Amino acid sequence: MAYFDKRYHPPGTAPGTLAGDDSGAATVHLMDYSPDRLAERADATVAECTPALHQDQTVTWVHVQGRPHPELLQEIGNAFGLHHLAMEDVLNRGQRAKVEDYGGQLFVVLASPCWHDSGEGVRLAIEQVSLFLGDHYVVSFAEGAEDPFEPVRQRLRGVVGRFRRAGADYLLYALVDLVVDQGFPALERLGDELEAVEDVVLDEADGRASARLHRLRAAALQLRRALWPQREATAYLSRDETALVHETTRLHLRDCHDHAVQMIEMLEAYREMATHLLDVQLTRLNHRLSESMRMLTIVATLFIPPTFIVGVYGMNFDPDASRWNMPELAWPFGYLFAWGVILMTIGLLFWWMRRRGL
Amino acid sequence: MAYFDKRYHPPGTAPGTLAGDDSGAATVHLMDYSPDRLAERADATVAECTPALHQDQTVTWVHVQGRPHPELLQEIGNAFGLHHLAMEDVLNRGQRAKVEDYGGQLFVVLASPCWHDSGEGVRLAIEQVSLFLGDHYVVSFAEGAEDPFEPVRQRLRGVVGRFRRAGADYLLYALVDLVVDQGFPALERLGDELEAVEDVVLDEADGRASARLHRLRAAALQLRRALWPQREATAYLSRDETALVHETTRLHLRDCHDHAVQMIEMLEAYREMATHLLDVQLTRLNHRLSESMRMLTIVATLFIPPTFIVGVYGMNFDPDASRWNMPELAWPFGYLFAWGVILMTIGLLFWWMRRRGL
Amino acid sequence: MAYFDKRYHPPGTAPGTLAGDDSGAATVHLMDYSPDRLAERADATVAECTPALHQDQTVTWVHVQGRPHPELLQEIGNAFGLHHLAMEDVLNRGQRAKVEDYGGQLFVVLASPCWHDSGEGVRLAIEQVSLFLGDHYVVSFAEGAEDPFEPVRQRLRGVVGRFRRAGADYLLYALVDLVVDQGFPALERLGDELEAVEDVVLDEADGRASARLHRLRAAALQLRRALWPQREATAYLSRDETALVHETTRLHLRDCHDHAVQMIEMLEAYREMATHLLDVQLTRLNHRLSESMRMLTIVATLFIPPTFIVGVYGMNFDPDASRWNMPELAWPFGYLFAWGVILMTIGLLFWWMRRRGL
Amino acid sequence: MAYFDKRYHPPGTAPGTLAGDDSGAATVHLMDYSPDRLAERADATVAECTPALHQDQTVTWVHVQGRPHPELLQEIGNAFGLHHLAMEDVLNRGQRAKVEDYGGQLFVVLASPCWHDSGEGVRLAIEQVSLFLGDHYVVSFAEGAEDPFEPVRQRLRGVVGRFRRAGADYLLYALVDLVVDQGFPALERLGDELEAVEDVVLDEADGRASARLHRLRAAALQLRRALWPQREATAYLSRDETALVHETTRLHLRDCHDHAVQMIEMLEAYREMATHLLDVQLTRLNHRLSESMRMLTIVATLFIPPTFIVGVYGMNFDPDASRWNMPELAWPFGYLFAWGVILMTIGLLFWWMRRRGL
Amino acid sequence: MAYFDKRYHPPGTAPGTLAGDDSGAATVHLMDYSPDRLAERADATVAECTPALHQDQTVTWVHVQGRPHPELLQEIGNAFGLHHLAMEDVLNRGQRAKVEDYGGQLFVVLASPCWHDSGEGVRLAIEQVSLFLGDHYVVSFAEGAEDPFEPVRQRLRGVVGRFRRAGADYLLYALVDLVVDQGFPALERLGDELEAVEDVVLDEADGRASARLHRLRAAALQLRRALWPQREATAYLSRDETALVHETTRLHLRDCHDHAVQMIEMLEAYREMATHLLDVQLTRLNHRLSESMRMLTIVATLFIPPTFIVGVYGMNFDPDASRWNMPELAWPFGYLFAWGVILMTIGLLFWWMRRRGL
Repeated sequence: MAYFDKRYHPPGTAPGTLAGDDSGAATVHLMDYSPDRLAERADATVAECTPALHQDQTVTWVHVQGRPHPELLQEIGNAFGLHHLAMEDVLNRGQRAKVEDYGGQLFVVLASPCWHDSGEGVRLAIEQVSLFLGDHYVVSFAEGAEDPFEPVRQRLRGVVGRFRRAGADYLLYALVDLVVDQGFPALERLGDELEAVEDVVLDEADGRASARLHRLRAAALQLRRALWPQREATAYLSRDETALVHETTRLHLRDCHDHAVQMIEMLEAYREMATHLLDVQLTRLNHRLSESMRMLTIVATLFIPPTFIVGVYGMNFDPDASRWNMPELAWPFGYLFAWGVILMTIGLLFWWMRRRGL
Repeated sequence: MAYFDKRYHPPGTAPGTLAGDDSGAATVHLMDYSPDRLAERADATVAECTPALHQDQTVTWVHVQGRPHPELLQEIGNAFGLHHLAMEDVLNRGQRAKVEDYGGQLFVVLASPCWHDSGEGVRLAIEQVSLFLGDHYVVSFAEGAEDPFEPVRQRLRGVVGRFRRAGADYLLYALVDLVVDQGFPALERLGDELEAVEDVVLDEADGRASARLHRLRAAALQLRRALWPQREATAYLSRDETALVHETTRLHLRDCHDHAVQMIEMLEAYREMATHLLDVQLTRLNHRLSESMRMLTIVATLFIPPTFIVGVYGMNFDPDASRWNMPELAWPFGYLFAWGVILMTIGLLFWWMRRRGL
Repeated sequence: MAYFDKRYHPPGTAPGTLAGDDSGAATVHLMDYSPDRLAERADATVAECTPALHQDQTVTWVHVQGRPHPELLQEIGNAFGLHHLAMEDVLNRGQRAKVEDYGGQLFVVLASPCWHDSGEGVRLAIEQVSLFLGDHYVVSFAEGAEDPFEPVRQRLRGVVGRFRRAGADYLLYALVDLVVDQGFPALERLGDELEAVEDVVLDEADGRASARLHRLRAAALQLRRALWPQREATAYLSRDETALVHETTRLHLRDCHDHAVQMIEMLEAYREMATHLLDVQLTRLNHRLSESMRMLTIVATLFIPPTFIVGVYGMNFDPDASRWNMPELAWPFGYLFAWGVILMTIGLLFWWMRRRGL
Repeated sequence: MAYFDKRYHPPGTAPGTLAGDDSGAATVHLMDYSPDRLAERADATVAECTPALHQDQTVTWVHVQGRPHPELLQEIGNAFGLHHLAMEDVLNRGQRAKVEDYGGQLFVVLASPCWHDSGEGVRLAIEQVSLFLGDHYVVSFAEGAEDPFEPVRQRLRGVVGRFRRAGADYLLYALVDLVVDQGFPALERLGDELEAVEDVVLDEADGRASARLHRLRAAALQLRRALWPQREATAYLSRDETALVHETTRLHLRDCHDHAVQMIEMLEAYREMATHLLDVQLTRLNHRLSESMRMLTIVATLFIPPTFIVGVYGMNFDPDASRWNMPELAWPFGYLFAWGVILMTIGLLFWWMRRRGL
Repeated sequence: MAYFDKRYHPPGTAPGTLAGDDSGAATVHLMDYSPDRLAERADATVAECTPALHQDQTVTWVHVQGRPHPELLQEIGNAFGLHHLAMEDVLNRGQRAKVEDYGGQLFVVLASPCWHDSGEGVRLAIEQVSLFLGDHYVVSFAEGAEDPFEPVRQRLRGVVGRFRRAGADYLLYALVDLVVDQGFPALERLGDELEAVEDVVLDEADGRASARLHRLRAAALQLRRALWPQREATAYLSRDETALVHETTRLHLRDCHDHAVQMIEMLEAYREMATHLLDVQLTRLNHRLSESMRMLTIVATLFIPPTFIVGVYGMNFDPDASRWNMPELAWPFGYLFAWGVILMTIGLLFWWMRRRGL
């Protein structure tokens, strides 16, 4: 698993060069709405999108799902007047969340985290979402296979309310809000995984838990890289720095920023928790080691010296050769004497161990 | 135990959607006072609260205890003109402490920590308190089962003093002060628990202390997430950014902010102490391990080689087969010779151990 | 030992409530001076202090030593017009250092650290000093048993110089300077203790050092909580934010702030040193463990297998039962053959150990 | 390997002293272009560069590859009016990235990291790139053996486009962009190396991995020292603080700054990952130690006491000497009794071990 | 070795008190220069310095080497109008680097680090340098035995150039530059020492390295305390906050500030490296421990059970007493049977060890 999925052009490439090896598996979805009417077209072509753009009374939303072919991107860029540096950022995924103001056009990059369950455990993926806000249009790009913006379309198709009456900036808010809020389930999952590891660590102090914990820490690091810049981006949008976003939308974006800040605090708490867990595991391993060591020390200390003593009386020196050769063997109470020596030795060792605080 | 209790709507939900699975076990308490008179009604309905609101000369305090049903919340929202984003925050508990200014209405979120003694040890819970301040009314929401604001009511019911004469902003201050000060007993408890663990760690270096310490660290992390944003919120209130809070109340809110800052410093000190304790425990475990190891090494090093020697003279080679077969067994001083070899070996090993600094 | 000595009122108490269980063992000391004359009275009553206050030409200094009874405090508060929130802070000791400006009156809280030698080792205590500065008076409160301000009185009683000619703000400076500078001997002591522990750790790697180190770290944490806010407080005083402090006194307070900053840097360095020492101790314990392990491994590896071999030839199988039963025992060179096997085994094990890098 | 390659003059040397032991292996490359024409000269002399400088309609780019001799540098300095402090920084390599504004001339220092594969593993080298921007000229210095700016020359030699039409500031941007973007492959390599170590750590917990990890951490530290100041430098260039850089170029430099920020975030994540890995390795080593300890403890605890028992019945006390001497040996069921004692002992030890949680 | 060499007056001393136990081993060096002429006098008296001061056309530089006696300092203070708080700082060495502006006089404190090779290893000393800048004079104080400013005097005595023509502020710059740049060799030495320890740690994992590393970390901490405030001081000087320093000198001081910043970055990198090294050492010690443990476990596990088995057949139960007493001893293939049991046991243990991953 690569730590981070970041694409870049070779150093020295001209700025705004659009190049990529991804054959364009992208689809274009067009939505054009005003309080009165709503037109929608799945699998549209760029040519079909252009007329909608020229109608000032409607909000035009062009969504590109998947990784667009450089040529498709260039075509869209020409139609909507996207800046070449921004288009380069759409292709070179792994960008950090940001807001760029290209005079009259706002370019927003966001990161959408989601967990994938694979055979060898869960894995976190960060997908880039790019949004362009113009006067009465929004162009959005989402990387993955599944279209994340379906709930927004449902709300647009529903009863005519605040959403349909509001401008393109409110659409931008709805998309940003959806992407930012995807952090909550991702964090919840992280928390669940951490608690599962915590149970293992506190109950068994299993060695494999450290590998699992390591993977969660890597995921938390990925999440951090995705969520921190999002905080800045939403802060930028909720401050009054651009004329494209209206006051009431800005209030909603402030709520969005609030969520981004909450997520970061939860994430930092999880990260700290993971570090704590590794410390606890190390301490528990040491404790277990210390315990088996103590048992070994007690047994070995009490029995190795007596084994030496009985070894002595197992020697085969010939008592007949001289009276100095193992006279104890022939003593009437030799055996009892040996047992006396053994028990006294064990007693002494026991006393010594206690005194040393074992 | 879930690390954090945070509710959120599924990403893509329309902003201001009020939805919740909590059947409304909430009660509404009304208090309406001026220097001259005081009206109070427990278990009120929203309809009963509205007339009080229209009287400009009195301060109206509506308190909702428990988790209100979305419909009840909507009703209160309509009566007092609460912002839909703020009402969403009341329902989605686990919000970070904050102050939002919705032009003419101040929305304050605070976190109230308390310890619960359960069977498996103490547990920290963070309850959300939400306050709305209008021109001459305060609407408050508290999550738990018990009404925390009874002491404030007692003071209102008592002698007519500064409190009854002051406006709604002073009531807000009294509520904020009470919630913020609940951090002190929570921190004191944390400190007591830490000291109890400290005694265990310094006296016995018990392995179970690490699990207990881990739980305290998790609680400290929870407290941190609750108390830090409170600092910002009280700072906001004590700065002159809103016309709703008067100068004299602001002086009192500065005192409140002061408490919030003190708590954070105490908390950070406790957190550091807990980290220190884990370090100390690891060191002590290592020390104990090192001590049992030394004892084992001394005993095994001194007795394993002599045991080999006595084993040699316990072999049964037939001295009659040739004169090379264990002639020592028949030496007149063979036994003493063997003891000599043994004692010399022990002496050498002892000298070697000393030299190696054991 | 409680980590921190912090008093607070139960949450919900009315602000400015003065309550305490300390029976008033406090004494009041009055000093009233101008360049021309100096009046001094120990164990004064509040009534005796009031006339001095009404003389504008003199500087009146009222010092309260010990923990004043709430009634005494209220009496002083009435005489000098002290703010009720400030008086609450005087009673609720354990406040963080701060400066509050109550329009026309400056309230300064400082922390004075000192070491106490008790039976079980040194212990750090933090005592609160509270100062009120008015137009031509200073009211000071110091917690401990001993009056810390005697050196300042000596200077006032001495030759008539800058001090006697300057106003109440210079007296405030002298008191602040004295309290702040008490950090230097406290830090010096901390440094001495740390060096003593360092000697133990580097020489013996004794396990008890970790408990001692832990107590020093706890003391450093206490000191930190006392000294950090002092930095802000002296910075506030040395900036020109209040009309009560004159330009020349401010220059002296800047010097005082400088000392506060120096102390913090020394303290942080000590804290880091203490952390280093624990790391070093852990490493040394591991090293010692590793060394005894090596010795044990060498001895056990070289002697356990030969002990098995000599055990084999100590078996009592009957060679007469068949020619397969231990024929070696009857070989003419059987004993030498056994020694050969033993020495070869030891040689092989020795070579194996070397190759494994032991 | 020296941690950092930093040159400095002996303290007390006059500022602007140009001295160095590097014999000037530097080559000068001249490029002079306008939309209409392009002149290029490799291995130019300073004299050949001067005429181009005096033509205001063209952009003159003088590139010095290698470490210039102080005399050559002085000559260039005189021709282009370079500040003596800036020239000193060109010679004293190991400067931190920065932008200095010498009124009418901008001096930019950047750091270009690259990995070298040597026999004993990979090694990171940081090369200094110095750029001077004047009204219509750029002077660049690059330290290494290979000219990094060839891709930029290719783009200049290609079709006449934005680049040829833009001024010297756009050339500066192109060079800065190239140098900054060289951080991406360097970081990618660091990530690859870390993943390789991760595999080793998680699979085998090999001890040599710690040395490898240490080298990667040292490299990450080097990278950090190179990349952090680059962030400030690019931020300075992309803010409108100097008249030398035009608005459109500034937009491109903002993109460049964006890359610098991204790199730092990637780097910090890698650094943290490396720290995690060392923690994991320590935990795994402890786990393995704990596991072998357990096995040893089980075997030794179960077999050492029985070995003592069989040793007892291997003693040679003479049963004929008295009836107290080892009567068991002559019991009809003595052998079975001994086995009974042995098995009971093993059983008891087994039960004891289980109870102690081994 | 005391961690820090900091002198302070007892708390409560009057400000500006000059007291010290250092008998004045200080010498005064006078230099008085203009573009036209240069007067120099070693071992001057204060009286000899005063006339030079009254000549406005020359720059007067009075340098005091060593620790001046309080009386000498007072005399100089009177002659040059030094502020009494500044003079106190000159005596109370161990001040943090700073710049104080006493209206018309600038007081600069700097720290000059140098390494001393003593018998028990290298040791870092921090010496305080104090500088006063007036309109056309500089008074400098340096603590050590050796005069550090000789190179500056050489430059003044040399050809008449920028230095002689510039004012007193340029002299101040030259002195500040020299003191600041002394950080480079000190850091280089620290780096060399660290690399030497690194070699030891990576090659041998010697336990003594941790004490050496500890001393280097203490030195790095000292350096940090010296260099960090220097950054602020040079930043202050290079900003246009005082009329005493001219624009061109300020440009040079900015260069000086640049060096201070570089040093801090190098230092922080070294400090981190030292921390890494301790981690690596701990890991390697654990690895070595784990390795010897494995060897011991393999040998003991394989040979302790067989030793028990051969012990069984070394028991002396009388086969004649009954047919239950060790019938195996008389079996024709008893010996081979015993070997079979032994080899099977070893095989089983080997298989068990493999399965447990040892």
